[in-house]
Amino acid sequence: MNETLQKKHSILYTDMYQLTMAQLYFRVGLHERQAQFDHFFRSYPDYGNHKAGYCINAGLGSLLEWMQDAHFTSEDVEYLRGRKGRTGERLFSEDFLRWLVEHGDFSGISLHAIPEGRVVHPNVPLTVVMGPLIMAQILETPLLNMLNYQTLIATKAARMREIGRSQLLLEFGLRRAQDGSANAGARAALIGGANYTSNVEASRLFGYEPKGTHAHSMVQVFMALGGSELDAFRAYADIYPDETLLLVDTIDTLESGVPNAIKVFEELRRKGHKPVGVRLDSGDLAYLSIQAARMLNEAGFPETSIVLSNQLDELVIWQIITQIQDEAPRYGVNPDQLINRLVYGVGTRLITSAGDAALDGVYKLVAVCADNEWIPAIKISETPAKTLNPGHKRVWRVYDKRSKATADLLSLMEEDPRQESSILFHHPTDHTKYRMLDAGEISEIEELLVPILEEGRLLHPSPAIDQIRQLRKIDMERLDPGVKRLMYPHHYHVSLTERLWKVKQQLITDARVEET
Amino acid sequence: MNETLQKKHSILYTDMYQLTMAQLYFRVGLHERQAQFDHFFRSYPDYGNHKAGYCINAGLGSLLEWMQDAHFTSEDVEYLRGRKGRTGERLFSEDFLRWLVEHGDFSGISLHAIPEGRVVHPNVPLTVVMGPLIMAQILETPLLNMLNYQTLIATKAARMREIGRSQLLLEFGLRRAQDGSANAGARAALIGGANYTSNVEASRLFGYEPKGTHAHSMVQVFMALGGSELDAFRAYADIYPDETLLLVDTIDTLESGVPNAIKVFEELRRKGHKPVGVRLDSGDLAYLSIQAARMLNEAGFPETSIVLSNQLDELVIWQIITQIQDEAPRYGVNPDQLINRLVYGVGTRLITSAGDAALDGVYKLVAVCADNEWIPAIKISETPAKTLNPGHKRVWRVYDKRSKATADLLSLMEEDPRQESSILFHHPTDHTKYRMLDAGEISEIEELLVPILEEGRLLHPSPAIDQIRQLRKIDMERLDPGVKRLMYPHHYHVSLTERLWKVKQQLITDARVEET
Repeated sequence: MNETLQKKHSILYTDMYQLTMAQLYFRVGLHERQAQFDHFFRSYPDYGNHKAGYCINAGLGSLLEWMQDAHFTSEDVEYLRGRKGRTGERLFSEDFLRWLVEHGDFSGISLHAIPEGRVVHPNVPLTVVMGPLIMAQILETPLLNMLNYQTLIATKAARMREIGRSQLLLEFGLRRAQDGSANAGARAALIGGANYTSNVEASRLFGYEPKGTHAHSMVQVFMALGGSELDAFRAYADIYPDETLLLVDTIDTLESGVPNAIKVFEELRRKGHKPVGVRLDSGDLAYLSIQAARMLNEAGFPETSIVLSNQLDELVIWQIITQIQDEAPRYGVNPDQLINRLVYGVGTRLITSAGDAALDGVYKLVAVCADNEWIPAIKISETPAKTLNPGHKRVWRVYDKRSKATADLLSLMEEDPRQESSILFHHPTDHTKYRMLDAGEISEIEELLVPILEEGRLLHPSPAIDQIRQLRKIDMERLDPGVKRLMYPHHYHVSLTERLWKVKQQLITDARVEET
Repeated sequence: MNETLQKKHSILYTDMYQLTMAQLYFRVGLHERQAQFDHFFRSYPDYGNHKAGYCINAGLGSLLEWMQDAHFTSEDVEYLRGRKGRTGERLFSEDFLRWLVEHGDFSGISLHAIPEGRVVHPNVPLTVVMGPLIMAQILETPLLNMLNYQTLIATKAARMREIGRSQLLLEFGLRRAQDGSANAGARAALIGGANYTSNVEASRLFGYEPKGTHAHSMVQVFMALGGSELDAFRAYADIYPDETLLLVDTIDTLESGVPNAIKVFEELRRKGHKPVGVRLDSGDLAYLSIQAARMLNEAGFPETSIVLSNQLDELVIWQIITQIQDEAPRYGVNPDQLINRLVYGVGTRLITSAGDAALDGVYKLVAVCADNEWIPAIKISETPAKTLNPGHKRVWRVYDKRSKATADLLSLMEEDPRQESSILFHHPTDHTKYRMLDAGEISEIEELLVPILEEGRLLHPSPAIDQIRQLRKIDMERLDPGVKRLMYPHHYHVSLTERLWKVKQQLITDARVEET
């Protein structure tokens, strides 16, 4: 990744209340107090008529890159100096601003995380931040901004990757992306399973080749100037003889586009070039791809690709595959051969995670240090499921005898379930729900959180996107097929050990007593 | 706006195919040919169970700012030099790259647009771009990326502004925004009707005061260290005596939060300060705000604000208002007084336009110049509604006798409906649908497209956000209430003049003939 090309936000890319709270901590002498925050999400993306049963963790590399440089510059502090309250008095005092200039960076932050690319589930800490209360608090907003979105998009891409089998998946969403999200979206799409993106800037940033075909406008230009679709195709083939992928729906896909493409492909073949394929961007994509395949086969181009675009998502891809399986034989087209030559160009619905455009990731204080001792913090919610799992925790993934992940388990810091002969998995909020597994029913117990930053120092370089993709692939294979269903996926278990459960109950009781 | 703080994308923030087409135009000698592209959207945002009947145009100022600086740098060209095709040959030739370095900026682009803040409708050109084919084509992707999103968010904000009456509306979405979209989203939210944002960087960029309260974590810190919610509130009031707005749902809103807030408010009052209010962030917001109001009234704080947050959108705000109107009297609370003290803190559902996360804006070639003559270009779609309105056009807004906008009318360049004694409004695709209005039924006909750029030169400075907000306000008042309904809005008419309709039909016929 070329860091110098990455546009960076200032440290003021945060919510105002982080700064007013920061000054409060400074004023009462708590600013350098060590605190721990857990970052996790509460529920899988729900796209309305379909729903995820897992997420793909993503965004950490981008966050770490931002954290390395972010600090309060004199311009930032100058801006804060000018902020005034209702009575016209300055909001931020000079000694606090001086502290920000001198200490306002993330060099005191330690961070553990589940690596990017790994399958993750609700209420499991994905990122654990420890450090001086002020800076750990200010980090909340940018951390959530960067991690929420990439995890959302990597998850959506992984769903398309699963249903699209091993076919090429291209990210085409830049024009419909929510403004400056497009590069992060492309990165997350690559992590989740897209092979390439059309976004040139993102391709440059992340070291992938940018991909694309041509637009309707190219055909329109030739036609407006007295030429034809065929002339446009010929011009393209002339300049890109080994990259000829033609968009065939400007006038009429089957009557004009495909026959003209075939003419040009024949000319290319005579000159010793291999045509790449056609792109369909409107209409009934299953029907049109069957007919295009039939025509291309008959003309002796069975190996050309058929790129599909236009509002694709995992359900539309699934529908196209199913329809081809049903209908292709009727036209003498082998459905598997056709499906294997498809390429999916996915735009809007991937880059915005259509149906559910935000992951509900949160960042919650779980412990504060006092006299060298960590004190668990809790927030009791009116909704029991939102009550925090307090304090320092470890996160374990437990695999069954088939080597499929069967549950994520949160434990106290001092627990190691690998040492136990049997494990009680406690539902996080419902005391009537638990299950017991004997060691003999378990093939592996893996610790998920990995140390990443130690007091601001990166413990190892962030992995390349290719390595992250590999982690995603391995984890997807270890996921039960039921959890991967597009609709009504099985419910993956996230549990607490009995000891963590008891600590949580005690804290709730204590807080309730205090309150009365 | 402080331009130096705005993070800018490179000119490679575009789709790969724009660059391969650019080289094709260069190779066949069409690169400096004048072309016209229309930018428009095809349908209003549809949020699933509710739908917009208008949009608020936004994003142009940001686009213009980017265009002023964007050009092909030597690094950009170096990157393109390294791109290779399937056979290992370079994709871009040296003469083309040289052209990009020498001419690859937007100094040849002229642009007309409907000003930001104005109410806009589908299939009406919002932005008309004229200039050398290559650069006008490359502009497609960044233009759509920037304008689609801001128009989407300004529209969502305007809906909340309408239903929220004149109450304060705060944009709180940074943590759930799709990564780097947050600043553009805040800008659009301000245009659409938000009063402030919590995003400090965006506030600095756009010259608004950043707003916020405090988080649950502040109360948790005090509690974990042996203190109480009341201690946390007191510390806050001590440091911000004139800004005391307290989040009251960390433990229990009515049993703990509000009574503790009242204690602190009484202390502030004794010291001569005016408490600001409370924030409710969970639970039944209508019920809790009625009870909080009752308790605050009884304690003699009827003027404190009640800030509501937690997954608000236009429907939730509407529900809260309706419930308060129904239920408040039962508790001795005046519903109008309560509604007037509400403040809406809107996060995720505004900044992502929840329910419909992308506007389907497109950018289509409509004319090419040949021998000093503009030739209309057309693309016939399998879907009639997607067939382009060809060529140079003018856009008019027609107001009825009540001074309400009754239709937008597209005409040929040489037409001026203000000169006509009666106007035929033709449905854009259905030949059976039209209506006639006499001049006497019309109070005003206004031309909507305004010259903005002339060959790269900004004709007048972009208006400030406050001015844009004013345009939005005026336009909203001139919109029929039926069009503003949250659900099932009336259908606003976008029509063609009879002459434009005939030109379009002729071009379709010609293209169909050519094809056979």
